[in-house]
Amino acid sequence: MLVEFGATRVLCAASVQESVPRWRRDSGLGWVTAEYAMLPRATNTRNDRESVRGRIGGRTHEISRLIGRSVRACVDFKALGENTVQLDCDVLQADGGTRTAAITGAYVALADAVTWMRGRKLLRGDPLITSVSAVSVGVVDGEPRLDLCYEEDGAANTDMNVVCTGDGRFAEVQGTAERAPFDRAELDALLDLAAAGCAELTRLQNEALAR
Amino acid sequence: MLVEFGATRVLCAASVQESVPRWRRDSGLGWVTAEYAMLPRATNTRNDRESVRGRIGGRTHEISRLIGRSVRACVDFKALGENTVQLDCDVLQADGGTRTAAITGAYVALADAVTWMRGRKLLRGDPLITSVSAVSVGVVDGEPRLDLCYEEDGAANTDMNVVCTGDGRFAEVQGTAERAPFDRAELDALLDLAAAGCAELTRLQNEALAR
Amino acid sequence: MLVEFGATRVLCAASVQESVPRWRRDSGLGWVTAEYAMLPRATNTRNDRESVRGRIGGRTHEISRLIGRSVRACVDFKALGENTVQLDCDVLQADGGTRTAAITGAYVALADAVTWMRGRKLLRGDPLITSVSAVSVGVVDGEPRLDLCYEEDGAANTDMNVVCTGDGRFAEVQGTAERAPFDRAELDALLDLAAAGCAELTRLQNEALAR
Amino acid sequence: MLVEFGATRVLCAASVQESVPRWRRDSGLGWVTAEYAMLPRATNTRNDRESVRGRIGGRTHEISRLIGRSVRACVDFKALGENTVQLDCDVLQADGGTRTAAITGAYVALADAVTWMRGRKLLRGDPLITSVSAVSVGVVDGEPRLDLCYEEDGAANTDMNVVCTGDGRFAEVQGTAERAPFDRAELDALLDLAAAGCAELTRLQNEALAR
Amino acid sequence: MLVEFGATRVLCAASVQESVPRWRRDSGLGWVTAEYAMLPRATNTRNDRESVRGRIGGRTHEISRLIGRSVRACVDFKALGENTVQLDCDVLQADGGTRTAAITGAYVALADAVTWMRGRKLLRGDPLITSVSAVSVGVVDGEPRLDLCYEEDGAANTDMNVVCTGDGRFAEVQGTAERAPFDRAELDALLDLAAAGCAELTRLQNEALAR
Amino acid sequence: MLVEFGATRVLCAASVQESVPRWRRDSGLGWVTAEYAMLPRATNTRNDRESVRGRIGGRTHEISRLIGRSVRACVDFKALGENTVQLDCDVLQADGGTRTAAITGAYVALADAVTWMRGRKLLRGDPLITSVSAVSVGVVDGEPRLDLCYEEDGAANTDMNVVCTGDGRFAEVQGTAERAPFDRAELDALLDLAAAGCAELTRLQNEALAR
Repeated sequence: MLVEFGATRVLCAASVQESVPRWRRDSGLGWVTAEYAMLPRATNTRNDRESVRGRIGGRTHEISRLIGRSVRACVDFKALGENTVQLDCDVLQADGGTRTAAITGAYVALADAVTWMRGRKLLRGDPLITSVSAVSVGVVDGEPRLDLCYEEDGAANTDMNVVCTGDGRFAEVQGTAERAPFDRAELDALLDLAAAGCAELTRLQNEALAR
Repeated sequence: MLVEFGATRVLCAASVQESVPRWRRDSGLGWVTAEYAMLPRATNTRNDRESVRGRIGGRTHEISRLIGRSVRACVDFKALGENTVQLDCDVLQADGGTRTAAITGAYVALADAVTWMRGRKLLRGDPLITSVSAVSVGVVDGEPRLDLCYEEDGAANTDMNVVCTGDGRFAEVQGTAERAPFDRAELDALLDLAAAGCAELTRLQNEALAR
Repeated sequence: MLVEFGATRVLCAASVQESVPRWRRDSGLGWVTAEYAMLPRATNTRNDRESVRGRIGGRTHEISRLIGRSVRACVDFKALGENTVQLDCDVLQADGGTRTAAITGAYVALADAVTWMRGRKLLRGDPLITSVSAVSVGVVDGEPRLDLCYEEDGAANTDMNVVCTGDGRFAEVQGTAERAPFDRAELDALLDLAAAGCAELTRLQNEALAR
Repeated sequence: MLVEFGATRVLCAASVQESVPRWRRDSGLGWVTAEYAMLPRATNTRNDRESVRGRIGGRTHEISRLIGRSVRACVDFKALGENTVQLDCDVLQADGGTRTAAITGAYVALADAVTWMRGRKLLRGDPLITSVSAVSVGVVDGEPRLDLCYEEDGAANTDMNVVCTGDGRFAEVQGTAERAPFDRAELDALLDLAAAGCAELTRLQNEALAR
Repeated sequence: MLVEFGATRVLCAASVQESVPRWRRDSGLGWVTAEYAMLPRATNTRNDRESVRGRIGGRTHEISRLIGRSVRACVDFKALGENTVQLDCDVLQADGGTRTAAITGAYVALADAVTWMRGRKLLRGDPLITSVSAVSVGVVDGEPRLDLCYEEDGAANTDMNVVCTGDGRFAEVQGTAERAPFDRAELDALLDLAAAGCAELTRLQNEALAR
Repeated sequence: MLVEFGATRVLCAASVQESVPRWRRDSGLGWVTAEYAMLPRATNTRNDRESVRGRIGGRTHEISRLIGRSVRACVDFKALGENTVQLDCDVLQADGGTRTAAITGAYVALADAVTWMRGRKLLRGDPLITSVSAVSVGVVDGEPRLDLCYEEDGAANTDMNVVCTGDGRFAEVQGTAERAPFDRAELDALLDLAAAGCAELTRLQNEALAR
């Protein structure tokens, strides 16, 4: 499925394998993992391919791990059975917030895959405890803002990625002071804004899956 | 730009750099190079990412080199000036003929880039001597066929990729006997079919660029 | 310098180079970067060396980036001049909280290096705007806890790393729901606990530097 | 065995393994694969070792794949049984046409290996349907030429590698316009010349094997 | 255990695995292997990490192999049973003679591991035939010297590493003429000195193990 | 040049570059370096290519360094001028003693290159202080033996590689106890035998260069 947030476009796909990684075998539990990547011309200035450089950069590694961890927060691995869902999030066009768009889209791809698995009787129960969505928030010109585009992102003093579950709790909070450290009041305002943004995304995810 | 041939979809992008590789410096000549890649879920069964495996496979290398060589066949490097055009061909969905779709699309992306460069006065003349397009032809059930889809491709005894210029000459001919070697008569029939297919693509490229 | 938190021992060293990375040249600004690594027998079960495997794992990449980002939050790059400080954090023994111990120790190593640079007249002002320290907090058996050791870490439902500046603000907040997502009240309690823990560490850092 | 064409010298060796790659197991079919490499001083100017650079270049990959594909065109994998023949083609001295010399020599090494396997009762029939040989042809100063040496190769407008079977059919046709695209008449003349050249090589191969 | 020779400090650790490498399986024999590495700031000038460079340097490879070979000289693999002892020698601080310090310390770590294995009934006999220690000797200003520190090492014309067993025989002799080749008389003097040095180290090893 | 010792065949080539590595620039001194490699079928059982595995093995690294160090022992770098001689030693066929054959042949290739450089006026004096040759000696069935072939090599208790200069001194002594440590008397006997063997090789090198 293709997720679009403003000018950011991420292609999210789920692949099901009827087995689990070696370290997970014979545990009766499933696994969900994710890989994130950017096409070389997703950004305005071309980036070299990581396949050509021969190694995955730290940023790519970090985001892949974040997506996997976030999506796993809503999964009951026992109900999934010994199956693996591999999520691929490929950024075709980037204008800020690619990692949060990827998480939000990866959940929808996962939910689609779960429906497909149910049809093929691969599950032992309902593996989706709740849903997961993510937003990026930041302080721009002293004001908390939701869904920063690339330009605002560069101008933000603080950049925070928040992953919420469908029932309004937090799966991941990653706040980084880009230029000036933030105090507790700013942190609270950003968390409020993020929770509201995620609630709206949850609604949109449900709509997309209802189709 | 997005090229679609049947169910095959390839994203082709050109990036301009106002410099040339080290071995080409101070020659007064430009350069055109290409990179080909496939998203992990472009095919029905997921392929591992080459960035994760840490090395580019032989097939990817071979196709990247073929695209670069083919497109360079229509370029006047002196007119291009000491600029490099980097072509990226990323397969979003694959159903046979990805390399020929990539060449055909890469030419259009190159022509767009040349127009953009002309606007910025980066050129010393007209770098496009002619156009370039490519088709895949093969013998299926004893009959020559054009534009094989994935299933026909697997059934073909012979698989041939032909790159033609806009004036009807050959830039590249790559014929491989998948199962049974082919005789001269079969080869001639395939070449006729390919030349006609390329002529049709040349017409479509011109239409796309006219828009 | 060797940092010890419980049974966790991290060797932190700063190296000064009178130049900056290529992308930073002629900007008048300095740079601070960090690398984190673990000896193969730092943990109870031996881990393979990343040099032998030929690539750095995602976790190592992620922690190296976190340390660098955290320590940069207290640096005035203009005052640093066009110099680079490279921080190396090598874990000799690991019992939970290695990344926060590394950040806390890296700041002390940086402050030492700044003193050394001042003696050699390499600075254009005071590059340390404030200090930086970090703690790991989590919820164990329903109770917020500071400085988790390895066993508690495994038992925690939520794991949060908080980096504070010496003046009580936040440079980085990274909270991850290991098993169950956390609600806002839990998040607030953890942030209170972390801020108090960092304040105590700031005091200890000042003592260490006064020696 | 050592193949010499003019000043080009290629060492071709076949190694037999009584097993097949994982993807081929329990199919009852054998496999033939090839690797091509050049010594650093095979050319006049030294080339860096690919083992030192840590990755195989695109050209090496491409030629290795071409040799394997070409030689497999004459093999009946059922008759070969579940055995693998690994062909190694190492260029000691290069003066043009190394890939076609390698294919021609690889066939002879394969035929030798087949004889050895027959002696050890490893085969289920005669795995060699026909023989395979290859030539390089090109247009130099407007004239089609056979077996280009390095200097002619550089001067050729078109470079074409043709692999023929012993019964006069084509296993592979690879024509590349180095400078100017070629028309159908030129292509036909080159194919005629190549077919005649391969027929002569087939005769020499048979002589070598008769010894 | 931490070995200190002058300002050189090497951390030596042994890890026991109840299995052997694939090529050694079902032989009834055990295995001992070693890895050597240096922290980036072990030397006065920082060295890049080999994990970051993505490959192990020749020097590291060579020393790891030397340590493994030397320590294996005192082991009865039958008595060890099908177990592997992995020795890790990590240089925290380097001031000459790191490889010989590593060998001497690795033996003590191995002897400790053997005692631990005996307690867990993993052995089939006594795997330590003798002990192993090593010294570095050289000619500085025309005089043979023992245990060269970094400065003397640089000034030495000849550098020789000698590994002796506890019963006074040689397991390894590696003499290299750094600047001027050495004659037989010099070689004999260095060997005498080394044998005496190793005897003294054997005494210290026994003391350390007696504790 | 091709060196043959019994069934061992090593191709040794020297390449001259009129520059030195970065760390040696503007020193007025030249450099000599060596690379050693084995063709996959040099041995009876095929070895995988190091270029395919993507990394150079420890043994290859170690031998390349030994050859470089040995040959440098006879070079006056000032007289060589700021030039680099790169020596390539490729083993075509291996039957024991490949590293010593490579050193002996590398010296002859170097001497040839020096003659060629003299003709082109690239030198500032005579860069060859003396010559260098190497032998492998060992104890087989209790008797010291010279130039072990592969079978004897495997049967030897001790394996020693000795590099001598043309004036009878030692450039390198590397003795390893393969099975049982050796005592001083054995060591002395091996050194006597090696010195005699190198003297004979020196004579043969002079003959080869006189041609």
